[in-house]
This record gives sequence, structure tokens and C-alpha cells, in this order.
Amino acid sequence: MIYFDSAATSWPKPPEVWKAMEHCIKNVGANPGRSGHRMALEAGKLVDEARELLASLFNIRNPDRIVFTLNATEALNLAIKGLLKPGDHAITSSMEHNSVTRPLHILNGKGVEFTKVNCAKDGTIKVRDIESAIKANTVCIVITHASNVTGTVMPLGEIGQIAKKKGLRLIVDAAQTAGVINVDVSTMGIHLLAFPGHKGFYGPTGTGGLYIDDGLELAPLKEGGTGSNSELPGQPEVLPDRFESGTVNSVGIAGLAAGLKFLRREGMESIRQHEMELTQRFLNGAKEIKGLVVYGPDELYERTPVVSFNLEGKSTGLVGTALDQTYNIACRAGLHCAPDAHKTLGTFAQRLIRFSFSYFNSKKEIGFALRSLAEIAAIPSEKFNDQDKDKSCGC
Amino acid sequence: MIYFDSAATSWPKPPEVWKAMEHCIKNVGANPGRSGHRMALEAGKLVDEARELLASLFNIRNPDRIVFTLNATEALNLAIKGLLKPGDHAITSSMEHNSVTRPLHILNGKGVEFTKVNCAKDGTIKVRDIESAIKANTVCIVITHASNVTGTVMPLGEIGQIAKKKGLRLIVDAAQTAGVINVDVSTMGIHLLAFPGHKGFYGPTGTGGLYIDDGLELAPLKEGGTGSNSELPGQPEVLPDRFESGTVNSVGIAGLAAGLKFLRREGMESIRQHEMELTQRFLNGAKEIKGLVVYGPDELYERTPVVSFNLEGKSTGLVGTALDQTYNIACRAGLHCAPDAHKTLGTFAQRLIRFSFSYFNSKKEIGFALRSLAEIAAIPSEKFNDQDKDKSCGC
Repeated sequence: MIYFDSAATSWPKPPEVWKAMEHCIKNVGANPGRSGHRMALEAGKLVDEARELLASLFNIRNPDRIVFTLNATEALNLAIKGLLKPGDHAITSSMEHNSVTRPLHILNGKGVEFTKVNCAKDGTIKVRDIESAIKANTVCIVITHASNVTGTVMPLGEIGQIAKKKGLRLIVDAAQTAGVINVDVSTMGIHLLAFPGHKGFYGPTGTGGLYIDDGLELAPLKEGGTGSNSELPGQPEVLPDRFESGTVNSVGIAGLAAGLKFLRREGMESIRQHEMELTQRFLNGAKEIKGLVVYGPDELYERTPVVSFNLEGKSTGLVGTALDQTYNIACRAGLHCAPDAHKTLGTFAQRLIRFSFSYFNSKKEIGFALRSLAEIAAIPSEKFNDQDKDKSCGC
Repeated sequence: MIYFDSAATSWPKPPEVWKAMEHCIKNVGANPGRSGHRMALEAGKLVDEARELLASLFNIRNPDRIVFTLNATEALNLAIKGLLKPGDHAITSSMEHNSVTRPLHILNGKGVEFTKVNCAKDGTIKVRDIESAIKANTVCIVITHASNVTGTVMPLGEIGQIAKKKGLRLIVDAAQTAGVINVDVSTMGIHLLAFPGHKGFYGPTGTGGLYIDDGLELAPLKEGGTGSNSELPGQPEVLPDRFESGTVNSVGIAGLAAGLKFLRREGMESIRQHEMELTQRFLNGAKEIKGLVVYGPDELYERTPVVSFNLEGKSTGLVGTALDQTYNIACRAGLHCAPDAHKTLGTFAQRLIRFSFSYFNSKKEIGFALRSLAEIAAIPSEKFNDQDKDKSCGC
């Protein structure tokens, strides 16, 4: 199988990831941060090691300001709901994933206002449009670092400068960029950074986290046992405990730490170089395929290794099914949990096919995929238009 | 090492648990419920298999009413905060874990009332005291199935009858009982059942869930991508998607499914029989140790395989440290994230040592632990009273 779905979750994982998980479950399987015995302390060290690796990668001074969550979506919910109060105003973009737009939608029903800044048809945003949206009650900018549909990279550095100038908090969804392109909370002026563990960090599912800037106070999303200050009726103030109620996913986090070490060893730059070579190769080849329309920015440096496209006149879902069943290419066809992005691109009705490439893909796979798409493009469109067979486009 | 800390997380795990995780991460590593390709669908099937195993175990008609969470604490937060609204009244017990009391405490600041029904010194509750606490605005009873400190099993059947008679919802914390003693949502009249995956089900950390009774509507704790109805501005109505935003822990859930199959194969009754034999053996031996005071019910059938105790005159934390460092016995000394329970027992200041036994413990280990405790008991108390060295009692 050719796996072009790493924007959903990266696969395969480096072997050391599951080896680290196996080691944890077999030898360090106690509950970290709970009991005082040696295996529990050892489990706590495994979790803290992952925190330190993340801090080093994101240029975070205090690793304890990183809290682990089930996934990036939980981290975004904690950031957005933990920060915004009734009467507050937030600014976001028209290229966001539902993990940003849905929490904002819910808060909107509770007195929080928000403005969606319209992006261009390639997914790019004008920083001055963000600035124009600022109002007296604006508290924060919530924005993806890169679109999960087009791979369009947002100008975080400039957005961070505006946030700083206007005294706003910057919440960043790094679901598509953590481990893929450089994220530096210090130089980018990021106050809250949500990231998944199972995409660009090569960790397993069940891992993600949120960085919370020094001095920033958030309302927790969940309360419960923290293994510390248990006598308090509410949550302890100390981080990470305040935001890590209940047993953390130590086995998954052990795998995440191994993934982070793999990333560090291989080097994010050389991984990115390989992935962008594949992306360039695909984009070049796609131009030769009749009716294949690619969305997103023309410039490679404005992209993550994600390319969304359609074949004119052909149902996106059925093309996705053919890629899977005839050519054994795993990709994602549909709305990608980002209806706003599709509305921005003008592809809400039609949907798109998304290929997302990883370090483990090869030039040969790109060549095969291009030939496969050329074959599909050559088939008369009426064979790709039976909507009753189109099952994969609502998601 | 002798591991007597299975009430925190069970260890060891059956080998098939990590083998199932390895299989998932190596061969079924796609994101379940997102893309339409075969590996993603296969990953979805793994997750659904765990749902079906749980439904069968808990006597739940529709597996889709079970939603996966990071842990039981998240499930309790979802149940309690999803159900209760300002002006509502809830009834709980004085033996609860912070995963119940802290969410209620937070809601109390937002206009939700609650009554803590006092339990007896052995942790037992009088059902008529629950009934007496019911008011006109009472919406639910939130109660643990068994105390994580004393193992005291609550009379859920009778409590369920009262809830039914009075039209209240019954929220149950099965952190200590799921997989340990029978839980039947139908005969017990449970509306919301929170459970961990990594204790009595032998799954890995990062797994837990909530059963939501048919027709019961809850406000989600988190919103985001669900892989379904992506065009909606808010969460879809359909379960489990409504409460499973973001990538689920498919790798962990694959391990949980293997743990559930282990449980089914070995048989919960024979596991319980073994665990209670160990508990009985320990309780019998403990009577012979001078100064060893056990808390909790006298009757074995009123217990889970959890025994908390102290050695008169000796600091609990230092006894715990000696057990770990001198005798290589891993246990939990402290407040066990359940300060109310300790206040009920009268052990809030002193704390307790908790031994929690599992299917993988042996009679030999019980014998060794009893001899170890007898040795510690024989040491003059002043050697166990340096509070500066006592690090393990706040949790």
C-alpha cells in the first residue's frame, strides 16, 4: 500500500516508537505521578523526558508549561475555552479545522464573539486583514500554522508581532506543522500552542499537548485526581498537574518521546527537504494530467507536504475509492473536517482529494500515483459520477 | 518487585495487550473514522470491536452509546458537566475520588448545588440517607461503585432503584470495579457509567470511556473534527462521534480490546475469586501484626481487592518508602486523591498505605508482604517519624 494520509496520522512509525511503548508497558507500567514507589517514579521520568524533548524543540523555557492531552483537538478546546470569557472577542481565519471553529461556535452561544478573517483562494491570509478585525474587546487570535487542506503556511511571525503590538494572545494550531516546520514559541510570540503527538512527531495515537505561556492563567477543561495537593477541593495551581487530571497516557507518551528522538536524529530540515522534494515532484507531474486541478499556494516554501486536488467532472469520493481499491493508494477524500477552508477554496460542494506525504514515502510512489491519476483522468467522467456509490465525502 | 498498586493501574498486562498494540501500530496505523481507505476502515473496526466487547460486558444494548475518553476522569467530567445545569442539585457520597468531587466543586461555583451523604467509618453508605437527601431540584446521584481507598462496594442495585423511583439519573464511577465485579447498566439502572481501560480491563494507559444511556442528552466537553457531518458548525448529534472529537487512541483501544478478551477468556468470576482469596489471606495475616489497623468493611463480599491500613505510631509515608526500598513492594501511601474518603475514615491527617491486589499476584507475595510488615511493625516507631523524609503523603 502507498500511504498518502500522514496529515491524518503519520504511518509507518519508526520501529523505536513501538519498542519504547513495549518497554514502558512491560517494565515501567506503573501510574506516573501517583504512587511514590520506584516504578511509578520511573514512569514519571518517561513522561517528563517527553516534556523536555518538546520544550527543546519548541524553544520553551519551562517544560512544565507543556501539558499532555488526548490529542490536539483537546489542547485547542482547553486553550480556547480556558482563555475566552463572555464579552471577549477572538479573531480566527477562514481556513481553520473544525477543532478551532466548533469550540468557537459553541462559545459564541455563550456570549463570546469572533471574526473569521477571509483568506484568499489559495488559503493565504493578509496580515492587515487580521489587524483590521481587532476590536476593543479582542482578546486573542486563534489560527492554524498550516491548513490541513492545502498545506498553506500562515505567516505566524508577522501575526505574532501584531498580537504583541496589540496585547493579544496568540493561540496556534500546530496540528500540521509540529515536527514538520520550525515552531518557536519565543520568536513567534505564541502564547498557547496545540500540537498532536501522532503526526509529525511520529508518536502513537492518544498523544497531544498544549504549551501554556508563563503567567497565563486558563480555566481547566477537566478536574480530578492530579496526584498532588489532593487535599484541595479544586485543582492545584501547579503545572502540569493543573491540566492533567486522571491517569496520563504514559505508554503513548513513551512512544512519543521515541518519535521525538527519531525526529531529532534524522533532523527536521532533512525530513522537510525530502518531503518537499516529493511535493514538488507531485505538483510538477500533476500539471501534465488533464483536468487535474491543484489548490493551495504556488510557492513550495508556503506549503507543508500536503496537496489537495480534484479531477474535473469526476466525483471526488469515487476517485478516492478508485485510488484505494484499484491502485492501493490511501488518501483522504472529502471535507477534511474543515468546511470553512473548502468554502474559501470554492470546493465545499465538490470536496477534494488530499495527498499528504511523509519522510517514509518515495519518489517511486509519487511516480506511481501520478500514473494512476493519469489513468483515472483518461476514463470517461460518467463512470465517476454515481453519487449513490460516493460514501467518503461527508468527512 | 511485588506490585500491589493495581488500583492505580494494573500491572503487568497480559502479553496479548501489547501484541495487539504492536499489530495496530504496525499494520492498522491509519486514523479511524477519518479517511475512506481500507486501512482507515480497518482501524475503525478495531475501535468498534472494543466497543462491542464493552457493551457485551456491561449489558449495553447499543455499543455506539459508549464513547472513548483519555481516562475515567475525563468520562466523569463529561457525565457530570454534560448533565448538570445551574439550579440543579446532585447527590454524592463522602467516599468519592477527586474525579467526582472536583468537577462538582467547580460546578458549585456556577450555581449547581450538591449534597455529600456521609458514609460510615468503614466506607459503607446507608441508602436511606441518599433518599433523605433528595430535593425538588435533584437531578442525579453521582457515586463510586467501590471506594479506591477501602474497596468498599456501594449497594448500586438499591441506589439504582431509588434513582428510578424518584426519576433521577444515576452516574457511576466504575474506576475500581470495571472488570473486577459485575456491572450491569440495565439491572442496576445506570444512566452514565465512567470506566478506565487500564485497570481491571488490563488495557494500556490512555484508555477509558463513558456509557451514555439511550435518549440521554449531554453537552460535549470538547468540540472538533469528528470525521462525520463535517459541514455542521457544531457537533453532530450521532454517537459516538458527538463525544469523540479529534483522533481517538486507536492503538490504546486495540490493546484494551485484547485486555477485554483476556478478561472474557479467564473469566471475571475466577479472577475475582483469586483476588479475594489473596485479600482474605492478607486480612487474616494482618490481624496478627501488632499495631496494624485495617480500614474498610469486615465482610469480604463488600470489598474489591483493595486493603488500606496503617501501622500505629509510624508515619505512613515512611512505611511506604520502606516497603518500596527495603522490601521491593510497590504500593500507594497517601491520600489516594480521595481526601473526603480519608476524612470519613478519620485518616486525613495520618494517611494510609494501600495494597491493591491483582490476578497476577500470588499467595507467596502476600506471605512475603505480611512478613515484611511484621518486621517494620517490630521496629521502634521513632525510626518512622521523621516528617522531613516523608515525601509520598500529599497525593
